[in-house]
Amino acid sequence: MIKVGIIGATGYAGAELVRLLLAHEEAEIVWYGSKSYIDQNYADIYRNMFRLVPDLCKGDDLNALAEEADVIFTATPQGYLLSVLTKELLSKAKFIDLSADYRIKDVAVYEKWYGIHHETPELLQEAVYGLCELRREEIKKTRLCANPGCFTTCSILTAYPLVKEGLIDPDTLIIDAKSGTSGAGRGAKQQNLFCEVNENIKAYGVATHRHTPEIEEQLSEAAGKKLALNFTPHLVPMNRGILATEYATLRKKADGTLPTREEIEAVYKRYYGNEPFIRLLKAGEMPETKWVEGSNYVDINFVIDERTGRIIMMGALDNLVKGAAGQAVQNMNLMFDLPEDMGLRLVPVFP
Amino acid sequence: MIKVGIIGATGYAGAELVRLLLAHEEAEIVWYGSKSYIDQNYADIYRNMFRLVPDLCKGDDLNALAEEADVIFTATPQGYLLSVLTKELLSKAKFIDLSADYRIKDVAVYEKWYGIHHETPELLQEAVYGLCELRREEIKKTRLCANPGCFTTCSILTAYPLVKEGLIDPDTLIIDAKSGTSGAGRGAKQQNLFCEVNENIKAYGVATHRHTPEIEEQLSEAAGKKLALNFTPHLVPMNRGILATEYATLRKKADGTLPTREEIEAVYKRYYGNEPFIRLLKAGEMPETKWVEGSNYVDINFVIDERTGRIIMMGALDNLVKGAAGQAVQNMNLMFDLPEDMGLRLVPVFP
Amino acid sequence: MIKVGIIGATGYAGAELVRLLLAHEEAEIVWYGSKSYIDQNYADIYRNMFRLVPDLCKGDDLNALAEEADVIFTATPQGYLLSVLTKELLSKAKFIDLSADYRIKDVAVYEKWYGIHHETPELLQEAVYGLCELRREEIKKTRLCANPGCFTTCSILTAYPLVKEGLIDPDTLIIDAKSGTSGAGRGAKQQNLFCEVNENIKAYGVATHRHTPEIEEQLSEAAGKKLALNFTPHLVPMNRGILATEYATLRKKADGTLPTREEIEAVYKRYYGNEPFIRLLKAGEMPETKWVEGSNYVDINFVIDERTGRIIMMGALDNLVKGAAGQAVQNMNLMFDLPEDMGLRLVPVFP
Amino acid sequence: MIKVGIIGATGYAGAELVRLLLAHEEAEIVWYGSKSYIDQNYADIYRNMFRLVPDLCKGDDLNALAEEADVIFTATPQGYLLSVLTKELLSKAKFIDLSADYRIKDVAVYEKWYGIHHETPELLQEAVYGLCELRREEIKKTRLCANPGCFTTCSILTAYPLVKEGLIDPDTLIIDAKSGTSGAGRGAKQQNLFCEVNENIKAYGVATHRHTPEIEEQLSEAAGKKLALNFTPHLVPMNRGILATEYATLRKKADGTLPTREEIEAVYKRYYGNEPFIRLLKAGEMPETKWVEGSNYVDINFVIDERTGRIIMMGALDNLVKGAAGQAVQNMNLMFDLPEDMGLRLVPVFP
Repeated sequence: MIKVGIIGATGYAGAELVRLLLAHEEAEIVWYGSKSYIDQNYADIYRNMFRLVPDLCKGDDLNALAEEADVIFTATPQGYLLSVLTKELLSKAKFIDLSADYRIKDVAVYEKWYGIHHETPELLQEAVYGLCELRREEIKKTRLCANPGCFTTCSILTAYPLVKEGLIDPDTLIIDAKSGTSGAGRGAKQQNLFCEVNENIKAYGVATHRHTPEIEEQLSEAAGKKLALNFTPHLVPMNRGILATEYATLRKKADGTLPTREEIEAVYKRYYGNEPFIRLLKAGEMPETKWVEGSNYVDINFVIDERTGRIIMMGALDNLVKGAAGQAVQNMNLMFDLPEDMGLRLVPVFP
Repeated sequence: MIKVGIIGATGYAGAELVRLLLAHEEAEIVWYGSKSYIDQNYADIYRNMFRLVPDLCKGDDLNALAEEADVIFTATPQGYLLSVLTKELLSKAKFIDLSADYRIKDVAVYEKWYGIHHETPELLQEAVYGLCELRREEIKKTRLCANPGCFTTCSILTAYPLVKEGLIDPDTLIIDAKSGTSGAGRGAKQQNLFCEVNENIKAYGVATHRHTPEIEEQLSEAAGKKLALNFTPHLVPMNRGILATEYATLRKKADGTLPTREEIEAVYKRYYGNEPFIRLLKAGEMPETKWVEGSNYVDINFVIDERTGRIIMMGALDNLVKGAAGQAVQNMNLMFDLPEDMGLRLVPVFP
Repeated sequence: MIKVGIIGATGYAGAELVRLLLAHEEAEIVWYGSKSYIDQNYADIYRNMFRLVPDLCKGDDLNALAEEADVIFTATPQGYLLSVLTKELLSKAKFIDLSADYRIKDVAVYEKWYGIHHETPELLQEAVYGLCELRREEIKKTRLCANPGCFTTCSILTAYPLVKEGLIDPDTLIIDAKSGTSGAGRGAKQQNLFCEVNENIKAYGVATHRHTPEIEEQLSEAAGKKLALNFTPHLVPMNRGILATEYATLRKKADGTLPTREEIEAVYKRYYGNEPFIRLLKAGEMPETKWVEGSNYVDINFVIDERTGRIIMMGALDNLVKGAAGQAVQNMNLMFDLPEDMGLRLVPVFP
Repeated sequence: MIKVGIIGATGYAGAELVRLLLAHEEAEIVWYGSKSYIDQNYADIYRNMFRLVPDLCKGDDLNALAEEADVIFTATPQGYLLSVLTKELLSKAKFIDLSADYRIKDVAVYEKWYGIHHETPELLQEAVYGLCELRREEIKKTRLCANPGCFTTCSILTAYPLVKEGLIDPDTLIIDAKSGTSGAGRGAKQQNLFCEVNENIKAYGVATHRHTPEIEEQLSEAAGKKLALNFTPHLVPMNRGILATEYATLRKKADGTLPTREEIEAVYKRYYGNEPFIRLLKAGEMPETKWVEGSNYVDINFVIDERTGRIIMMGALDNLVKGAAGQAVQNMNLMFDLPEDMGLRLVPVFP
């Protein structure tokens, strides 16, 4: 059994980690870390866990935890892990960080977008960006996994094969994303009250959202050149789910025509055909967040618009599963040489 | 492996059966029966099942199915099974009926409330009412299990111990129940459109809802006398969940005082303390449907009102799991001598 | 033009007052009072008011305000007005208090349920409980109107004629109420976050909710004897609306039979037939909150259950309109001798 | 008083017309036309209208209606009005058509996107596209007003000044739109059931939605050249509201720099500064559908992304008001020489 510690177990992503790990055959949670609820019953904070989790919440003593745990998940605010992580801790336990602290290789970019001084840039270089479908082999070998953000997982996976294969002009890429409200966390903020979110939709962080550089860095690497894109998140009155609608201009073929649906499909299949958690939908079926809710799936599809020469790519996932805790477990499985889908064979819940 | 057939696999309850059985170690679905979608891909009807269910929908040829399957779940409209079930079919496969056809022992009562002539009253007598917590031993031995309704499961379990022990006056029992909209089914009806249900709450079937006699029959048996109660369901703008708020006058003790919280709690614990799917909450914690969503749990608690001498009992469950498919699987486990919680160790999904 | 001041203009009820008063032909808001947002643009706090309200928020200097305003609405927390109101203030401006401070005549009861020492009990005696349908003439003459709570307005109006006429046994009255989330206010509390309320229903304040004594005092007066009842509120995932489902045992007539629907209906019509804001629905139509949303209507109906001898009464209203701001405006109209429905001829918004 | 007839009064847009016209000082509804509910009480179909509308539903006898009414609103399916409208009818009553039948001047384009043969193309030429902010003077003079669609009103108004002034490259325009579910109508369709829409978001009509050519025709006229754009609608789990997020590449100024926020703002102000129903938000405030709900406002704002050289424009409106019935009333006001905002001074409802 892998001994697991969670720092930030009382946020929504942390609680989803608990949900998934409770059902994981090879994992055992030994530490429910929480800043706000130390010494309280975990099941009093998340009453769905009543009779399932008898443990009290503990604090964030990483040194003590690293002695006990084989792997530590940090579902913590930006700036936490980068200020406390050390090589010594890493020598004792593997880390899977759900914050952005080790996601962006370019320290200057991180510091600019997050407004946080990065105290451990040397560790950044050994961190592996934990998007399993793109970096499976590296993840298997790392001890510091930077688990991608919810918007970024969806945005990158949806466009990646076409960027990588040069089928779209990467400078035309526009990502219009829609998220359920659990992505905003469990903190008591007026803007996230039921009555403020319900019956409402809005964009936020327009041209400034911090997932932008993360998406850009990954897709730039795929494109083989630096790209800048537009990423606009929207808040949707639902608990879970992210839908990314992505627009890009298709590159014409040598004969001046656009690639066909079949050609594009073949590329997606080449990249994702064997992926356990990516479902390429049939022509005409648009991804819907409800169809993946509660599961680790990403549903992807696209439409070619002959009139404008653009492709509209769409991806849907559950922000707390494939967009956070599920992906973190998938990374843990890779890092501990377990079947990649262990604990993640979750059938989407409908309705 | 138990071979399972489902008639009515494309309703919400049928689809939930599919979700649960796909994750059941000892069950294998061999027949996805559907009236409306014969020969269509099941996963085209429920796209959460894409890549999980490759099967086509079949019809409702029970004779053919009974040859293939060890157990047949019928998640069908009232009046279906009672018109086609025979002893011969029952000799070939076990039946778990999610409709009301075999739930009410008193044929006259069934016929009055449902307005349907019961064609197979002789089978009714061998049917066992499948509320596992009350009739575990009988269920193990039956070949025809009448799976209780969603409202009834919640309503009965919440009040049962107190009725049985004579702690409340059964003639004062009033059940005010609230249900998510999946209980209304997937049929295209104007009244169930998003815009009609959203931002709205209403009572329906007031004094006439057909779950009333089912609750009455079970609780009358517990009370040892015939009782009539009020049951009022309400439609709540959410997908899943049933909350029953139940009111009754407490019987005073010999010394003229009301029973204490501890005394009532002790009774609940005696009945449910070892039940795998009933969680008796701590004093002061009210059941909430969200805390059991996606799981087979019923959360139960109560408050004594010294001022009025009444007790307010509350129970919450997921109408598609413990209120339908989960309970049906629990019954199947009992009927096939499997661990009762097999395939049902579901952690509630939050948020 | 009546000059209006609002203390607590930035809560949900205060904002609804603003919405209604902006459209009122004879009222002009001269003071947007707010504790948290002094000197900020009101329209920055409630952006629906952009270009409609150019004013800044002011504080709660009642002395200054009483010089300026003809009427002062206080949509403030319990305990505010009772600690600052004086006869001098009342001599300068009329007060309509949306808190509970002057609703309950029995100081001891107020202090027990609210845990607040009542500092101005002498003013309590001159306060009039502002349920227009019951106390129209008194309201016209008062200068201190205690505007009823949302749950109480709905609960009382639904049962009042039958209690008053002795048609039901008042000791059997049970009120199961359901409320939208705006009733919980705009304060940033975890329990009111979108993800905590959405897809969820729960009871709260069971046997202890502070609207109980208010309902009891009014209905006791109607019954001509002290009664105790059960009142159980539930939180529903919707913005607005209250539905009260009320149960009581019908008193039999001299001949031992239950009153008929026609007889009960006649009583309701006698009390409410000419009321501008009470709609008595036709037999078979259940009140739904959506049908009154945004308006000052209360929809009322009932069902007689011959089997149990009980009547189930139901009332629906918009908690922010008839349950708060609309009723307050209705009271203002009465107090200033304006047509009672001025500014309140609001057509319910659907969907 | 203007005598008004409504054909299609029992759809959501028709019902919203009723809501608005009931409060309109100069209009009186004389005909509630409905295909499905002839001879039924209108208030039985829309119970919010109980006691407000005593009328029965009538059919669609346009000849009889044209004798009675001064203006006829047709809130009917595509293809209805174009098949029945005649010059004679137009000589008797003015028409405001909420369908697409007379919106697109290019008959071939209409027929291609709608798959309907246009039987009265000669009338098309006298029809005026009823986007009041763009064609106020023409609307005043017409007797056939083609009321714009909900998506199109939002999409066009949001981008129009920048297209017209050549500030953006019109060939780069991408419109990602989000709509509440009332836009899908009141027809009983499985895909619009509560449980299918709730907790879900999806794109639909990708690259094929019929509002596309309408937007293109209007913006092409503004651009002075034919443009093709991408328009992608999404279904959001809320009743009302449309948010359009629009992306375009800014044209650089002669000095090679991008226009500044102030420069763009000045253009918007020049076009819309005096518009009664367009609110240009302050920098940093994003349009939210909730802030305009129930009102005739469009809230508009934009963000310049220096990194990509694009502008992100956003517009929000209530699809049933400014996106349908409100705009239709605004058109009626213009056509009958009434104050443009008569009956439309609606304060947005929040929450």
